[in-house]
Amino acid sequence: MKATALHLPTFKEAPADAEVISHKLMTRAGMIRKLAGGIYTYMPLGLRVIRRIEAIIREEMDAAGAIELLMPVVQPAELWMESGRWEEYGPELMRVKDRHEREFVIQPTSEEVITDLARQDLRSYRQLPKNFYHIQTKFRDERRPRFGIMRGREFTMKDAYSFDRNPEAALASYQKMFDTYIRIFDRLGLDYRAVAADTGSIGGSASHEFQVIADTGEDALIYSTGSDYAANIELAEAVPLLATRMAPTQPLTKTATPGQARCEDVAAYLKLPLDRTLKSIVLSTEKPGADGQTEVTVWLLLLRGDHEMNEVKVGKVPGLKGFRFATEAEILEHFGSKPGYLGPVGMKKPVRIVADRTVANMSDFVCGANEADYHYTGVNWGRDLPEPAAEGEIADVMVADIRNVQAGDPSPDGKGTLAIQRGIEVGHVFFLGTKYSEAMNATFVDEDGQSKPLQMGCYGIGVTRLLGAAIEQNHDEKGIIWPAAIAPFEVVVCPMGLERSESVREAVDSLAAQLEAAGIRHVVDDRNERPGVMFADWELIGVPLRITVGDRGLKEGLLELTVRRGLETRKLPPAEVLAEVQKLLPTL
Amino acid sequence: MKATALHLPTFKEAPADAEVISHKLMTRAGMIRKLAGGIYTYMPLGLRVIRRIEAIIREEMDAAGAIELLMPVVQPAELWMESGRWEEYGPELMRVKDRHEREFVIQPTSEEVITDLARQDLRSYRQLPKNFYHIQTKFRDERRPRFGIMRGREFTMKDAYSFDRNPEAALASYQKMFDTYIRIFDRLGLDYRAVAADTGSIGGSASHEFQVIADTGEDALIYSTGSDYAANIELAEAVPLLATRMAPTQPLTKTATPGQARCEDVAAYLKLPLDRTLKSIVLSTEKPGADGQTEVTVWLLLLRGDHEMNEVKVGKVPGLKGFRFATEAEILEHFGSKPGYLGPVGMKKPVRIVADRTVANMSDFVCGANEADYHYTGVNWGRDLPEPAAEGEIADVMVADIRNVQAGDPSPDGKGTLAIQRGIEVGHVFFLGTKYSEAMNATFVDEDGQSKPLQMGCYGIGVTRLLGAAIEQNHDEKGIIWPAAIAPFEVVVCPMGLERSESVREAVDSLAAQLEAAGIRHVVDDRNERPGVMFADWELIGVPLRITVGDRGLKEGLLELTVRRGLETRKLPPAEVLAEVQKLLPTL
Repeated sequence: MKATALHLPTFKEAPADAEVISHKLMTRAGMIRKLAGGIYTYMPLGLRVIRRIEAIIREEMDAAGAIELLMPVVQPAELWMESGRWEEYGPELMRVKDRHEREFVIQPTSEEVITDLARQDLRSYRQLPKNFYHIQTKFRDERRPRFGIMRGREFTMKDAYSFDRNPEAALASYQKMFDTYIRIFDRLGLDYRAVAADTGSIGGSASHEFQVIADTGEDALIYSTGSDYAANIELAEAVPLLATRMAPTQPLTKTATPGQARCEDVAAYLKLPLDRTLKSIVLSTEKPGADGQTEVTVWLLLLRGDHEMNEVKVGKVPGLKGFRFATEAEILEHFGSKPGYLGPVGMKKPVRIVADRTVANMSDFVCGANEADYHYTGVNWGRDLPEPAAEGEIADVMVADIRNVQAGDPSPDGKGTLAIQRGIEVGHVFFLGTKYSEAMNATFVDEDGQSKPLQMGCYGIGVTRLLGAAIEQNHDEKGIIWPAAIAPFEVVVCPMGLERSESVREAVDSLAAQLEAAGIRHVVDDRNERPGVMFADWELIGVPLRITVGDRGLKEGLLELTVRRGLETRKLPPAEVLAEVQKLLPTL
Repeated sequence: MKATALHLPTFKEAPADAEVISHKLMTRAGMIRKLAGGIYTYMPLGLRVIRRIEAIIREEMDAAGAIELLMPVVQPAELWMESGRWEEYGPELMRVKDRHEREFVIQPTSEEVITDLARQDLRSYRQLPKNFYHIQTKFRDERRPRFGIMRGREFTMKDAYSFDRNPEAALASYQKMFDTYIRIFDRLGLDYRAVAADTGSIGGSASHEFQVIADTGEDALIYSTGSDYAANIELAEAVPLLATRMAPTQPLTKTATPGQARCEDVAAYLKLPLDRTLKSIVLSTEKPGADGQTEVTVWLLLLRGDHEMNEVKVGKVPGLKGFRFATEAEILEHFGSKPGYLGPVGMKKPVRIVADRTVANMSDFVCGANEADYHYTGVNWGRDLPEPAAEGEIADVMVADIRNVQAGDPSPDGKGTLAIQRGIEVGHVFFLGTKYSEAMNATFVDEDGQSKPLQMGCYGIGVTRLLGAAIEQNHDEKGIIWPAAIAPFEVVVCPMGLERSESVREAVDSLAAQLEAAGIRHVVDDRNERPGVMFADWELIGVPLRITVGDRGLKEGLLELTVRRGLETRKLPPAEVLAEVQKLLPTL
């Protein structure tokens, strides 16, 4: 391939709306071009990377026995009504009407269409297991598209759907996809981590996210330094940091804490460690009351002062599904005080209390006195407050894991301590169970003659998001550093003075012929640009290896081979270059 | 590939809504599955054919120097307003609103997006020529989707767009694409014809359609038996069938023709040849009048009784752009008679007359007398009617080519006569000129320092429609007969008694290994179905070659090789099969 046969629009400046490095670099390197908010054209170089990623995904999916098909972008609303997602899905679901006023969606995923196909075609246990996938354009109408193609509206996703006879077989299919994803992400050349994830509203019993490690990632990944435990922060279990509760040693004392509303301020003011303070968070849940009115329940959640609430965990506490933060009026009504001075002692009206596991074992602690500018010190369970119920019991004062783990916490498997990395979610495997098959009546006849719902799994990889994630992980101040496996080209040949030097032209032609014969994806920069422009362009674009061919080097019988990562250059005789390239590429 | 690793849902019955053979066969063979009107899932076998077609298109487009990118499916309305197509495009354009009520379209083509990209990136003549293409999902909200994927709503198209400095360079780009299309359709293995086509509302000066020849095609293709003249019927020029006009020999006579309203009936009733009669068609055009009212002009079009009106040609007659058929009231007002007895002699109010070229040279002809149940015979120009103006002149009685050519007409290039075939349009190349670049201000700076609009061409291939067209052309009563180049598999191996015969298993494994090593796309039917089921399935699916392996044959040292087209079987020693397959495939 010659550079003049490409379109290489590179830019010195990043677009004004680019918040993250991958968005800036992809735009500057001419890999994407914004068309509208969250909607991008994939330029020739960007498309080359997409095709590489797709090829690797296809090879591994096919090898795992998954069957490729292609489901439509535009899907009839009726199927989405059957599954319930027409109602469930929020405004991210792009809904359209055709000329006959019939309703359709622009698909964000294809559970409904594949389940509809399965209920037509998979009627007998003899046809199972089956796993269908497609690589197709998706649309999600994000309220605020950002981070370039990482949270775009139109994007490409590989989504696979497995169908099995029973949960055991479905989990085997799940494991097969998990293993396949490991092979895919290994081949893509990215540093990643598979973490257990919350199954969220989809339900089911197993879910893992595949996260590309990057400091700029939106997700926090938790892993143990002493075992292979790994989970995202939504799911990672926080164990109590106090094994048992100490007996009280202090009296309950109301103390003036003028203007000290935050735990950090109270601790500093009282010269106490932060882990002696209690953080009070007031939530509300609503349900329809007997008289048609809404019945509100107010909850007080208690966390240690240095801990953060985990909203996903809170949502799983019995009674707290669908919670919201309490209004100021609700807080005033129940506590008689404004936020900042709230606590479980001396409330105005009873509320339901949920103490974090660690809080349940605290003693002599500090909490708000439900009066502005006052806190209690020396607070103790069972003396100043009712004794909490055992974890798992429904009671007025319950105990649950409701906090985010922190670096240094013990691993929940008892081996080692937890550490935190940032990650970008690029894959997700999900055991769905019968959520869709029951809603859509997708059944098969089992060996015993019984009709049973198909057991399903779904498995996604964000193809276009992977481009962004790869760059967030692999870049420097000069530009992108593509892993060789997905780079638009593995090698760029930069000739100095191609037009005027016959020997340069011959050396370049010979090199290109060798690379071609060896099946190495390469480009010759025949644009006759100055070396500085050539180097800057290809360093920005991120081709892993550069071979510089110049008259001066040729006179000494040497070419220059530069590794993009680190930009280290070595000089080699032309006859040795190909072997060196072949040796280096698998390591890049 | 093993058949058990595929999903092969074949059906005995075609869907009730299938009107054409390709739709019936693709559904029965499990290649497509209907999801909604005009929206289909491409099943694994159908997708394999699509991927073959795409691969051939990509190779040839890349070889022609075209640059692949990927433009979005969802495009902002603003660009379509700039080009004018937001207004021009009818209800086929699928319009959608996002959550912020901003308007978008689901693209039917991408002229706007590529022109927007060109005006950003192509600023200098030094960057020209450029040709960008993508293969992307399109949507056209057909009022009545039909013919399966041949006139679907969601479909896949390859669309390319060229940018040049001047019309000469643009025509060279056009020719390059024309030649590329010839190579593509040759490689696809289809019988096709490139025909000159009308440029229609897009304007510009050149356009060719690529039509797959099929009796069931919607389009009529005209070609000369004595030259390479070829055009679609909308464009094909009809020459006058009478070289000169004979002098009148008959008097004008009003003749009773009771109940004879059609030319055929009149000719039979009067015992005259049909080519002595005149067909009168009344059209109307509208324009805004001086007083804000609509001003209607009524036209009388005259065709020989055995000729058909060509609406595209009529629309090009000066004054007739945007014509409609006249209302009964308008006809009565101007002719004083109901349709069936109309003619140019003795009208009630003057109308504008357009005579077809052949009509202008007729003499002693028959036409309606503008009175129910009466015709005139012996009608003559210049005596009973004003002499028509010369062709091309604007006058009250004009002459123009307004009819469809008929088989047997002289070719307009003077060489041979015209013949007609039916075709399915699968490709279209278009010289656009500056229609989009001027509307969207896409200019470049030429060598002379002047800013000039880019000269554009656009080039489409209906990828998914090609599947249907290939089948319309290649099928028999058993099913599809794929050209080998695009077949889902080139060879199917059908073992008899795979489970019970060790020698069959060995022969099949050996054969599969040979085919694999030779790079021949093959499938082994390991489903353990009866031979009749296997053969019927693969004949329906249309794999070009079948190798049958059975114990009886093996004892004789022979395998059976069956060619799908014709279903002729030959017996061969196993050692000769591969060579025979390799010899046959390029011919299939």
